[in-house]
Amino acid sequence: MNTLSTEQEACTINDIRAAARRLEGQIKTTPLLEATLLNRAAGRRVLIKAECLQRTGSFKFRGGWSAVSALPEDLRRQGVIAFSSGNHAQGVAHAAEQMGAPCVILMPNDAPELKIANSRAYGAEVVLYDRPGGEDRIALGAEIASSRGLTLIAPYDDPMVIAGQGSCGLEIAEQARKAGVQQADVLVCTGGGGLAAGIALALEAEAPGLRVRPVEPEGFDDVRRSLIAGHRVTNGEAETICDAIETPSPGELTFPILKRLAGPGVAVSDTEALRAMAEAFLRLKIVAEPGGAVALAAALYRPNEIQGDAVICTISGGNADPAMFARALAMVEG
Amino acid sequence: MNTLSTEQEACTINDIRAAARRLEGQIKTTPLLEATLLNRAAGRRVLIKAECLQRTGSFKFRGGWSAVSALPEDLRRQGVIAFSSGNHAQGVAHAAEQMGAPCVILMPNDAPELKIANSRAYGAEVVLYDRPGGEDRIALGAEIASSRGLTLIAPYDDPMVIAGQGSCGLEIAEQARKAGVQQADVLVCTGGGGLAAGIALALEAEAPGLRVRPVEPEGFDDVRRSLIAGHRVTNGEAETICDAIETPSPGELTFPILKRLAGPGVAVSDTEALRAMAEAFLRLKIVAEPGGAVALAAALYRPNEIQGDAVICTISGGNADPAMFARALAMVEG
Repeated sequence: MNTLSTEQEACTINDIRAAARRLEGQIKTTPLLEATLLNRAAGRRVLIKAECLQRTGSFKFRGGWSAVSALPEDLRRQGVIAFSSGNHAQGVAHAAEQMGAPCVILMPNDAPELKIANSRAYGAEVVLYDRPGGEDRIALGAEIASSRGLTLIAPYDDPMVIAGQGSCGLEIAEQARKAGVQQADVLVCTGGGGLAAGIALALEAEAPGLRVRPVEPEGFDDVRRSLIAGHRVTNGEAETICDAIETPSPGELTFPILKRLAGPGVAVSDTEALRAMAEAFLRLKIVAEPGGAVALAAALYRPNEIQGDAVICTISGGNADPAMFARALAMVEG
Repeated sequence: MNTLSTEQEACTINDIRAAARRLEGQIKTTPLLEATLLNRAAGRRVLIKAECLQRTGSFKFRGGWSAVSALPEDLRRQGVIAFSSGNHAQGVAHAAEQMGAPCVILMPNDAPELKIANSRAYGAEVVLYDRPGGEDRIALGAEIASSRGLTLIAPYDDPMVIAGQGSCGLEIAEQARKAGVQQADVLVCTGGGGLAAGIALALEAEAPGLRVRPVEPEGFDDVRRSLIAGHRVTNGEAETICDAIETPSPGELTFPILKRLAGPGVAVSDTEALRAMAEAFLRLKIVAEPGGAVALAAALYRPNEIQGDAVICTISGGNADPAMFARALAMVEG
């Protein structure tokens, strides 16, 4: 797509505005929710950008639609391919299906069953590969892509994907203004940084008093540590239930944007993510998956790391397996 | 409040519009959700009015705010009292608290713990009575009300409560128009009929192609049977997990409105309500309680009783106990 010099960021506010126009009528404007009892628990106003209510159950539909709709007609007709543990897969698959583009999804064979089933339900051809076993998913993907003429839609290191996620930031800017919030941290569930970077660019232009704070699972806090180091660092060995945001390092395209615009990162434990899922169930009546709950977990359990009278949290996805959700429910105090 | 002749209905579209003005800035405009995979399962478009996302987790906040805000200042300062198994209690308690009015809630001692705890969290004094034991809740309530000068806020047979619930119908009319739906059944979870009557009046004025269809649990289908009989009939002995809509008979004020405006009622089983809760979890990422899921259950499992290419369903509340929600999750096919 775009050719980049190192001085130039991969995505601009103009790209985001153009993506928002392509997305109009296709995405939902998700609500900014608030609950009195949650505010009391957190000690400040907590405004929830409920992207679990987005089509396909996560913000990924924004980037998927943005990227597929930006392709020239002939490439779109040949089809697309995506690597994904799930939410990006569903977002790309559903967008592709709606635009009549063939879609192949490469998924690790330990991805949550619900996410595999949903990608198929959205009409995608799902190809499973062994993880962490011998199969090289990059080589496998390249082979399928070149043999069929498919365009790869990367999960975050793609300017059109970042631009699509940025449309969420445009909505936050407007909704926060209506809610009377001018200054606040915006906690964003962060894997490779596509959503965080897109929102950061949108807020820079539309709501400069709002500042993105990336939130990650402990052990996968590569963005947090990279922001401290000033360059991209990689995670060591670790495990987390937050499969949706389990990435090895910040994106090549997303990191420069976050370095320039984001505040310090926050890391939370898997238990805190589960407790936040339970709070979202009890107080907001929405379904969060573990990786979609880390921002709310930070708001609830790391209050001293946050500034101000109000905080905005993305709940970035709700594609929780029933068994995982039952684990969260079990944390509700009788 | 209003004195009524038998020819005049208790609530009019003007009452609803006035209530909507009092509610402005206090209630949330809840989204009308739609999910492709749910549409496919139902065989038609299914638009979900997600009142579980309303403040206090159910539509009852609308009626509570409407009724308390309609009281003269001196009565409001003395306080209000409500009988409720839960959602009406929370709606009235939170509205009263926000307006600085004392609030007493009379609840059966077998009400879901979450609902009792929440009424207290909203600042209400909760008085528990034995059910179905000897205590006469009406006498108990009258005694407390008269000794403290409290105004009773009835759960559905109150013109200002019906008017408040009607504000949900104004939103449905506008949102359905934007979604391109002009003709459809509107399935409404129904206990005493306050929500169904309010929505019916609003749609009559604003979207005459949309028709309310009350949905109830089997064994508590008094509205369905009353509509057939042409007069109010009472339920026999029965049990249901749908505690929020477990009422003995249609309201005195709500029934004439439903008789004039509603289509035939639908009754669903408890198992169907649980399965609908699971679908709402999987496809919509929202939390429905059993009584809030019966309309979706009708859309999914009684397709032959519904007309048209699209159907609108209220999900009227999301105050599910974790244990009950776990039962619903267990119905998801692995």
